[in-house]
Amino acid sequence: MAVPIILIVALIAGILSIAMAMYFRYLVLKEDPGNERMQEVAGYIEEGAKTYIKVQYKVLGIFVTVLAVAMLFLPSPLKDSDTYERVFIDALNWEQMLAYIIGALGSMFAGWLGMYVGIKANTRAAQGCTISTKKGFDIAFFGGAVMGLAVVGVALIGVSTLYWIIPDPMIILGFSFGASSVALFMKCGGGIFTKTADVGADLVGKAEYDLPEDDPRNPATIADNVGDNVGDIAGMGSDLFDSYVASIIAAMMLAATLPMIVDVTLTEAGRFIYTVFPVVLCGVGLLASLLGIYYIKWKGSEEPGKALNTGTYVATILFAGLAALFTLIMVIGLTGEEATMLWKLCGCAVIGLFAGIILGLTSDYFTRDDKKPTRKIAEAAQEGHAVVILSGISYGLLSVAPPTIGIVVAMVFAYLLGGVFGIAMAAVGMLAIVGTIVSNDAYGPIVDNARGIAEQGDLGDDVIRTADRLDSAGNTAKAITKGFAIGAANLTVFALLFSFTVEANDIKPFTIVAIDLLTINVLIGAFIGVVIPAIFSALLILAVQRNAAKMVDEIRRQFETNPKILTGEEAADFGKTIDIATKGSLRELIIPSLMSILTPLAVGILFGVAALGAFLTGAILSGFVFAIFMSNSGGSFDNAKKWIEDGNLGGKGTEVHKAAITGDTVGDPFKDTAGPSINTLLVVMSLTASIFLGFLMLFGNGAGLLVF
Amino acid sequence: MAVPIILIVALIAGILSIAMAMYFRYLVLKEDPGNERMQEVAGYIEEGAKTYIKVQYKVLGIFVTVLAVAMLFLPSPLKDSDTYERVFIDALNWEQMLAYIIGALGSMFAGWLGMYVGIKANTRAAQGCTISTKKGFDIAFFGGAVMGLAVVGVALIGVSTLYWIIPDPMIILGFSFGASSVALFMKCGGGIFTKTADVGADLVGKAEYDLPEDDPRNPATIADNVGDNVGDIAGMGSDLFDSYVASIIAAMMLAATLPMIVDVTLTEAGRFIYTVFPVVLCGVGLLASLLGIYYIKWKGSEEPGKALNTGTYVATILFAGLAALFTLIMVIGLTGEEATMLWKLCGCAVIGLFAGIILGLTSDYFTRDDKKPTRKIAEAAQEGHAVVILSGISYGLLSVAPPTIGIVVAMVFAYLLGGVFGIAMAAVGMLAIVGTIVSNDAYGPIVDNARGIAEQGDLGDDVIRTADRLDSAGNTAKAITKGFAIGAANLTVFALLFSFTVEANDIKPFTIVAIDLLTINVLIGAFIGVVIPAIFSALLILAVQRNAAKMVDEIRRQFETNPKILTGEEAADFGKTIDIATKGSLRELIIPSLMSILTPLAVGILFGVAALGAFLTGAILSGFVFAIFMSNSGGSFDNAKKWIEDGNLGGKGTEVHKAAITGDTVGDPFKDTAGPSINTLLVVMSLTASIFLGFLMLFGNGAGLLVF
Repeated sequence: MAVPIILIVALIAGILSIAMAMYFRYLVLKEDPGNERMQEVAGYIEEGAKTYIKVQYKVLGIFVTVLAVAMLFLPSPLKDSDTYERVFIDALNWEQMLAYIIGALGSMFAGWLGMYVGIKANTRAAQGCTISTKKGFDIAFFGGAVMGLAVVGVALIGVSTLYWIIPDPMIILGFSFGASSVALFMKCGGGIFTKTADVGADLVGKAEYDLPEDDPRNPATIADNVGDNVGDIAGMGSDLFDSYVASIIAAMMLAATLPMIVDVTLTEAGRFIYTVFPVVLCGVGLLASLLGIYYIKWKGSEEPGKALNTGTYVATILFAGLAALFTLIMVIGLTGEEATMLWKLCGCAVIGLFAGIILGLTSDYFTRDDKKPTRKIAEAAQEGHAVVILSGISYGLLSVAPPTIGIVVAMVFAYLLGGVFGIAMAAVGMLAIVGTIVSNDAYGPIVDNARGIAEQGDLGDDVIRTADRLDSAGNTAKAITKGFAIGAANLTVFALLFSFTVEANDIKPFTIVAIDLLTINVLIGAFIGVVIPAIFSALLILAVQRNAAKMVDEIRRQFETNPKILTGEEAADFGKTIDIATKGSLRELIIPSLMSILTPLAVGILFGVAALGAFLTGAILSGFVFAIFMSNSGGSFDNAKKWIEDGNLGGKGTEVHKAAITGDTVGDPFKDTAGPSINTLLVVMSLTASIFLGFLMLFGNGAGLLVF
Repeated sequence: MAVPIILIVALIAGILSIAMAMYFRYLVLKEDPGNERMQEVAGYIEEGAKTYIKVQYKVLGIFVTVLAVAMLFLPSPLKDSDTYERVFIDALNWEQMLAYIIGALGSMFAGWLGMYVGIKANTRAAQGCTISTKKGFDIAFFGGAVMGLAVVGVALIGVSTLYWIIPDPMIILGFSFGASSVALFMKCGGGIFTKTADVGADLVGKAEYDLPEDDPRNPATIADNVGDNVGDIAGMGSDLFDSYVASIIAAMMLAATLPMIVDVTLTEAGRFIYTVFPVVLCGVGLLASLLGIYYIKWKGSEEPGKALNTGTYVATILFAGLAALFTLIMVIGLTGEEATMLWKLCGCAVIGLFAGIILGLTSDYFTRDDKKPTRKIAEAAQEGHAVVILSGISYGLLSVAPPTIGIVVAMVFAYLLGGVFGIAMAAVGMLAIVGTIVSNDAYGPIVDNARGIAEQGDLGDDVIRTADRLDSAGNTAKAITKGFAIGAANLTVFALLFSFTVEANDIKPFTIVAIDLLTINVLIGAFIGVVIPAIFSALLILAVQRNAAKMVDEIRRQFETNPKILTGEEAADFGKTIDIATKGSLRELIIPSLMSILTPLAVGILFGVAALGAFLTGAILSGFVFAIFMSNSGGSFDNAKKWIEDGNLGGKGTEVHKAAITGDTVGDPFKDTAGPSINTLLVVMSLTASIFLGFLMLFGNGAGLLVF
């Protein structure tokens, strides 16, 4: 059988990726960690991050164990290997449960590795800045690339090995669910942690005591730096790990149903090729990413920001070429009809990736300080606090329009080429170069921290300016990667929705003939689905607010009880602020995480699986609106503030600047907590629906308890 | 035939309503308009309002004419009176077009009458406050009731007379579309006008020159008062006129299809009774409203706020009783099966009304200053501008949950009783006492203006305190009526959606078999639909912001060029500020109003009528989220600020107060421009879909140009 020959591409790419990650880790660790003070600060950050991760992983362990046990008793969905019929066997659901645990452990490992190297990289990047911009850039970039490569490597090795052992995507869905559970904790929890520290530090330190950013006297400074690592590196990595795996497996699940979707007759070989095609394309994407990373390294010296984006473009173009090359190989042995279809699917993946780039560019437009929206927001700050907020919210809402058009056009073309499988392949394509995306994204918090360490390590103004330059490059890259991440999650959850439907009909034919909005249960499902992202966002923002208030109290307490902190004679108690952020982020996670698991189950049990499909659709669509709105308005507020700080409209310290800071503070939990967490919410809800589908079928045969 | 006997109830109720409105007008006009200064101020307001209305109605006239001409050439949808088959005759669409024009003129007349009396009432209510609270309350309440009664009276007379002449709801849909066109201009335009003036006046007058609210030296004061009249009286009246008529006609259209929806065989008499049942129930509701109004008058002296709400409860209970009584009469001559069904439909209407009350109460909870959300928002103001905003936005988003549950439960019960016709009847029931709702709502701006006039007319602190008391009663009532209005619009547009589907199948059988989210065109329709309310809100908020900036410039210019304005020696140029608000509100209306007409047409033409159904569903659901979110967060910000101004958390002039003002200023366009305009957007889009359905069927036979 051809399994080893083709799948081995993905496996090799995965192993290569981990090897590269380890090599980059070595490159980073061998660098000079800087003077004693820098190492001290880096030590605090490392310790704080480890504390957070330890507590977080412990609770996560309990969560995963509980869900694993629950999964064990779900109807076991094995596929008959001869007839491809789904048969529920009367046995414990061991396979899916094990895949789940492996997925969770894999994501935890990737997150840990990436974050660990990120923390090591920040002080070294700061020290590197004393030598040259290129040196600082390289260290930070290699540090970030470890996260990117670890994510992709672990995911590809996991998926391809599991499929090798049990060639049934339904089982491997457990792997995806495991990754999702971790993402839920790491992304939402990290998002709450980072903004608790950031907002708390700003509200007291900057506003009340007039301390500069990253001032070592501020008790929340270290927590803020830790937050960058746990939220923006580990959290974002687990988020994209999650989308990446989900998109691959959703596509694999749909592959089996291709003949139902488009008019093509499948041979045995064809069926196999289609099923592994998503994995292979991701392997190809990884190769393109590695080459893109090499390109960035080579070009890195001149313009850090441009280099990062050019790396993305290079990877995109390489992906298109390599995908065509591998398709050329894979059509060997297929019938003419099958070969044509495979080419079309390859086209879908390329369309997806290009759509991702376009989404990224529109986010970039709406958040760049030299474009109209951010300029208008900055100008609105002249009219005061309220007007800047109204302006940012309005442009954030408006910014939903272009990516909607982008996604819709991509969906139409992908659908025309390959039906819903085509849309799933577009999601795969959009995520194929996720290695590059995560690398670029993780670069940001590393240079952000490096700048802080340079400040605290007294490396002088020149070095800080260099670090600032690297930091602003990170922000440019981040705008694009965020647009990418939201778009990819959107297409992925659509793919999951389609595979959910297919699976339901697989279990019992005609369970979901249609998700018809004219039937009342479906309409109600859609209604509840549309509302969920709004509630979820509100809960996360309130969580940040509640926690930040505690942080504010603690900072004030430290300054009041020990005046030597402010004079710099004694160090602040960093452990206490980290503790507040850690415990708070976990406590505030309870309701949102229960919501993401329990609402789909409740809708399925009460209104049936078709209504659950509508629930997911509603949540996907309104989640898209909220995610884009919050990310872009947040990014735009941030850049408007920075533009003013660069000396425009009066510059720092003016009333205009104060109003812009208000905007930025409102935007912070928008862009770093609520907005990006919506992706994870959507994936978790979609996977919950698929994993528990056999269970939901027990209620009114899938029609729900409230049959109308 | 029984037409006259039953329909006459509605007609008589309508005529009674207009007669009562005229009587109340007389009661208001005969009162003392106060001292010379008060009359002068009232004169300015009247003149400003007239200027606005003149310009607005002129542009509206052009808009209506263009649409009327377009309608004339639409396929003429006459129903064969024998077979009830829809036949498109090869003739000009005169009937529907005339109904359209009558609807527009009717709404314009009701708006004009209500606003005219409202303006006359404000100075008289101020003067009334010098005598007693009861006197002031009565005048303001009668003034507001004119609007409420005019709306209901004109609507009922229009619908029942038109149905008398042409017994085809499809034709009368033109009447509803006419009302909608007016609502679009009056609600969105009025909303932009009022907030342009309000925000502009606050930003310069209060913040820069420290002038109190309603200070006559502020050049935008009169414009602000005019805004209350054109936005909150005429705009809100036209909005509810619109929902009211749409709910009746949607239900009438569904009545004809009852046998398809639920298992009942209809006799000729039964079919007729079901069709006129919505109209009759609205007549009944009007009678209940009149009695409720009488009750308020009788009880009005003690506690103005409570009296208004008690009036609503009285009307609700009376409606339940009277509806049962009339059902008892109407079942005479029906078969047993038909009679049972009619009782069930009566039950749906009562469920709808009770659901409306519950929605109102949840809005009340989320915006009252003695409940947790508003208190928390006020407390958040202690942490500064950004935190108060985050808090208000979060609670606003959270407040979407309870009304969602309320609407969903009402829909489930109504559906169980009467299918989709049951849901339409729930909408009718919710709007049945709209006379009371509009009266209570229009009371608010009258007392708000009265307070301003009392201030400007130097009536002394005691009188101002009395006026303040009346004003706060208005705010309490407003919270409930807003929740009501959004809920009613939501159910109404659902009813329109169902009737749209029925109508499509009427034109060509099986055009819309299902609105299946698993088909790509439907999914794309839903996607675009969900995005629209976000874009629409953003456009309106930006409109306010742009206009307010112009207003700010003008106020500054007046203060700078003529210092005597600030000393009070010379009057400010009120005409100029009114002119800015008027022209700006019209200019900014162009894109949103084109959007509300053109997007449904574009979706229908490109993706087909089923996709258009999904587009409407998506817009209804996300529109609900945005409308509730914006109304409640805005209301809550407002009350949090007022609570602080009452001396809590330090009171006026503190940093806490300043932060609360920022919240209020952000909330202003949320609650008074974007939030409530979404209702109108949804109704206009739904009606556009229905009116142009015959036209849309020309594209791919209703499947759209892009057939997949």
